[in-house]
Amino acid sequence: MCEANVYIDERDGKGEVLYLENVDVIRPEDGKLFIKNLFGEQKFFDGQIKEISLIKHRIVLTRK
Amino acid sequence: MCEANVYIDERDGKGEVLYLENVDVIRPEDGKLFIKNLFGEQKFFDGQIKEISLIKHRIVLTRK
Repeated sequence: MCEANVYIDERDGKGEVLYLENVDVIRPEDGKLFIKNLFGEQKFFDGQIKEISLIKHRIVLTRK
Repeated sequence: MCEANVYIDERDGKGEVLYLENVDVIRPEDGKLFIKNLFGEQKFFDGQIKEISLIKHRIVLTRK
């Protein structure tokens, strides 16, 4: 499958922390990022996309 | 493979226009979106991400 794992770059020495696995959809909504995975889990994240790397199945976000 | 095709939502009746196929990497860089595909083609797009849908292999952008 072609979903990706979403990580948060915490920029505080913790590095990149897993936020949600098997993500299918991401879109900006009401100033946040709406994120939905294959299992119907949905989250809103107050931040932005830092990098998408599809071959690595990785999407990294940063907090606002 | 798990790359995606990138489309521009032109919002002018043209609908979504293919911009780059087989995209691997997207990241904000210098106020634009840096986009690179599997074949090493690179583009800078002056806009933002409207929606990512990985299962559909689609990423839609809008112009600034």
